[in-house]
Amino acid sequence: MSNYTKIGKAVGARTELHDKLNLTGAEISVNTLEAGSCVPFVHAHKENEEIYFIISGKGKVTVDDEEITLSEGDWIKIAPAGKRQFFASSDSQISYICIQVKAGSLGAYTADDAL
Amino acid sequence: MSNYTKIGKAVGARTELHDKLNLTGAEISVNTLEAGSCVPFVHAHKENEEIYFIISGKGKVTVDDEEITLSEGDWIKIAPAGKRQFFASSDSQISYICIQVKAGSLGAYTADDAL
Repeated sequence: MSNYTKIGKAVGARTELHDKLNLTGAEISVNTLEAGSCVPFVHAHKENEEIYFIISGKGKVTVDDEEITLSEGDWIKIAPAGKRQFFASSDSQISYICIQVKAGSLGAYTADDAL
Repeated sequence: MSNYTKIGKAVGARTELHDKLNLTGAEISVNTLEAGSCVPFVHAHKENEEIYFIISGKGKVTVDDEEITLSEGDWIKIAPAGKRQFFASSDSQISYICIQVKAGSLGAYTADDAL
């Protein structure tokens, strides 16, 4: 069996990669919110931390009681307990990646895990 | 303590995010190879799977005995044992994210881990 799985560019409002890429250590989604729209709920997690990367556009995220502006190239890590909601700007879409991993799950990494 | 950590756009040949974002379930790096250049070694991993996202540009990766072309928006997951090496195209740089997670570490996710 091959040691890799490849897919092309994700299109549409939301693409979940776990099954498409046969992931075992993360779920990753690619998301686009149109200008003026938002994720219609606030959520937190039981065990998973999430890392978000802004591919393009701009907007904001609320985490607990704080509002954080976001633009292309930004990264934000949110701990499991953080209550979060994402919003596109009123005049711009926002496209972002969400990487979901189990908090505390990483052991050795980079040079210490390399062969 | 705040439930989030944010940083701005990564610049330069390689930026490692683990310590900058206080990650506990992943290491993530942002990498740029100039046109005609490559990562100067082949590597595999002991425990970690890696997921790569091409932010911009084009190039290729070799995994074991296969050569896979890469361009903006592509995703590739490589299992720990895959022997990999990344190359920029001769006429284009390539910028990519590498997400390193422990294979098999993800438990419940998305709706099943949400609150």
